[in-house]
Amino acid sequence: MSIPSPLDLLASLIKCPSVTPNEGGALSLLESILKPAGFEVHRPVFSDTNTPDVENFYARYGKNAPFLLFAGHTDVVPPGDLAAWKHDPFSATIENGEIYGRGATDMKGGIACMVVAALRFIKNNPDFKGSIGFLITGDEEDVAINGTVKLLKWAQERGENFDYCILGEPTNPDKLGDMIKIGRRGSLSGKLTVHGKQGHVGYPDLAHNPVPDMMKLLEALLAKPLDQGSTHFSHSNLEVTTVDTGNPATNVIPANIKAAFNIRFNDLWTFDTLQQELRQRLESVADGRISYTLDFVPSNAPSFLTQPDDFVKQLQNVIQSVTGAMPILSTTGGTSDARFIKDYCPVIEFGGIGKTMHQVNESMPIADIEPLTNIYEKMAEAFFASH
Amino acid sequence: MSIPSPLDLLASLIKCPSVTPNEGGALSLLESILKPAGFEVHRPVFSDTNTPDVENFYARYGKNAPFLLFAGHTDVVPPGDLAAWKHDPFSATIENGEIYGRGATDMKGGIACMVVAALRFIKNNPDFKGSIGFLITGDEEDVAINGTVKLLKWAQERGENFDYCILGEPTNPDKLGDMIKIGRRGSLSGKLTVHGKQGHVGYPDLAHNPVPDMMKLLEALLAKPLDQGSTHFSHSNLEVTTVDTGNPATNVIPANIKAAFNIRFNDLWTFDTLQQELRQRLESVADGRISYTLDFVPSNAPSFLTQPDDFVKQLQNVIQSVTGAMPILSTTGGTSDARFIKDYCPVIEFGGIGKTMHQVNESMPIADIEPLTNIYEKMAEAFFASH
Repeated sequence: MSIPSPLDLLASLIKCPSVTPNEGGALSLLESILKPAGFEVHRPVFSDTNTPDVENFYARYGKNAPFLLFAGHTDVVPPGDLAAWKHDPFSATIENGEIYGRGATDMKGGIACMVVAALRFIKNNPDFKGSIGFLITGDEEDVAINGTVKLLKWAQERGENFDYCILGEPTNPDKLGDMIKIGRRGSLSGKLTVHGKQGHVGYPDLAHNPVPDMMKLLEALLAKPLDQGSTHFSHSNLEVTTVDTGNPATNVIPANIKAAFNIRFNDLWTFDTLQQELRQRLESVADGRISYTLDFVPSNAPSFLTQPDDFVKQLQNVIQSVTGAMPILSTTGGTSDARFIKDYCPVIEFGGIGKTMHQVNESMPIADIEPLTNIYEKMAEAFFASH
Repeated sequence: MSIPSPLDLLASLIKCPSVTPNEGGALSLLESILKPAGFEVHRPVFSDTNTPDVENFYARYGKNAPFLLFAGHTDVVPPGDLAAWKHDPFSATIENGEIYGRGATDMKGGIACMVVAALRFIKNNPDFKGSIGFLITGDEEDVAINGTVKLLKWAQERGENFDYCILGEPTNPDKLGDMIKIGRRGSLSGKLTVHGKQGHVGYPDLAHNPVPDMMKLLEALLAKPLDQGSTHFSHSNLEVTTVDTGNPATNVIPANIKAAFNIRFNDLWTFDTLQQELRQRLESVADGRISYTLDFVPSNAPSFLTQPDDFVKQLQNVIQSVTGAMPILSTTGGTSDARFIKDYCPVIEFGGIGKTMHQVNESMPIADIEPLTNIYEKMAEAFFASH
């Protein structure tokens, strides 16, 4: 069995146009490498109403505990304006020490390094006790309905029991070794509508303009910080993402105005306590004089934390031994599939540099590829030495 | 020459489906009545780029000064939801003392009463010295480009010199005799855009949300009243008519947010001083920290006032003599074609009751029709007695 170089594997993965929900050849490529290496491979397709079917990938080497799971996604966000790219986003062009392409760092880079790391670990430790697996979805970047949630449930029903998971999302803000993520803030979205009374601008006394009322409500939501942060989390944050009236008539006072907001919240809040706080803030200014409705969008993203125990410290040391930098433990940023995995086993996230993800000219430094592969291999060594 | 009853004429006018820009037979009907009565009639059609051609109407009886002009429009706004009307909006159905139909009060009622009043005045005063005219447009309710503005210019180029104008818009809030309008507030619309920096909700430090900035700017515009009103005008008023972002993504901080506002302003302001005040208010909070653009929509609606002189007092007395109520002199409400006429001669407005205008089941009380005709006839008597 020959093990590909992680750079070659990353280039091959980038060339697969796997924009969600398309498999684009990426999962077949992983199968063609892992199956000959002795992994049992499954590619379950999941379906749901009103969403496209999506193909997923599950591979396991070994039968016994302890079970180390590598997780990730091969799907990528659309490239956007092609004219803005220096190179074809699916060409994997190498220039000035970077490999360019959609998904280069989010997260085909992580997957290429994980796969090669696992193959090297198995080759270097032919007698290790335990299992190594890959849980890879093609539905992370879009609605995430036919992806990791269903794949985890599918695996559980097969009797798979994971002991620890490393998710290969690009966690480093600036350089490899910056940051491990040990949790994520939760996410809650809400929709606010203020009801006024339509009328002619020339007769404001016969109408009721909902715009100033909406401004008062939004001010109440934004007036004071939700909190000052907690031990492992930064402060919770509310962003008003849109305010819309849709009134094209310059001489008409509108009947309604809508707004939407999203909150990234830390472990000081649950969905319930947060919703209660927001309702209280609105009521304090509405006070029966502002007519509004508040709806929360159902969310599957609570905040969570993987305890930074001794094993996490070992993983930090592994990274320091390779990069020379001691990574900080962080819970910043958006949500990731780790929020689903944490219900099955402890999960930490480490991968490439996040700076260019979802942007044009997304890239990964060539110089990071071998070190990241080395880190994942040493993480496997640490796992099997301590579990 | 037989003079129609004003009720019959109003019913016939309502049956003409003269939704802007359609003539609908309304102007032909007026011509068929005024021409046989000795009026010289013209029906100029005006054109402009990107607007439909519109037919207008001009009629004059007599050759000499003084010249009393009756003005108005036969076009009507669309009926809207037909199912919401009790009767076909172009059927002129009479029920419970009201005549129903689109344009019943705005302003076919005024026109029917004016026309019959003029014919009765001429019949009763065969030797009067002077002229009576009608300046009627079919383009008041929509863009008003091929209407009164051009008709006035056309008349001026023909050498027509008006001494006074009575515009038959529905000026009474609740009952006939409530209100004469002797001026109108001006109208100025503006568009405000605040520029931020798009980004992911999970990384607010890498983005700049323009929504709170827009809220600060709108607060600055609304913070204190523009003025407290003047002798003949109520206070100037700013309404934010729309706020729009159009961001469907709950996890994205938007790049821009737009708002539009409209101001109805009194004679304490000109376009220039008002725009300067608004720019100052915005700058006082923007202070180099908020990136925004402010554009004013070109406006042809300054504020204006027809001096409430002795003749206006005579017109008030005429109305009191017929209705028993002394009308107040007002400058409230929206704009009207009086804003164009005031550049040619003094203009006052008096007509039906405004309550149902532009609404479903627009109507005029039958009991108001003879009194309003009577008022217009006495107004003509007063004019020729005093000019």
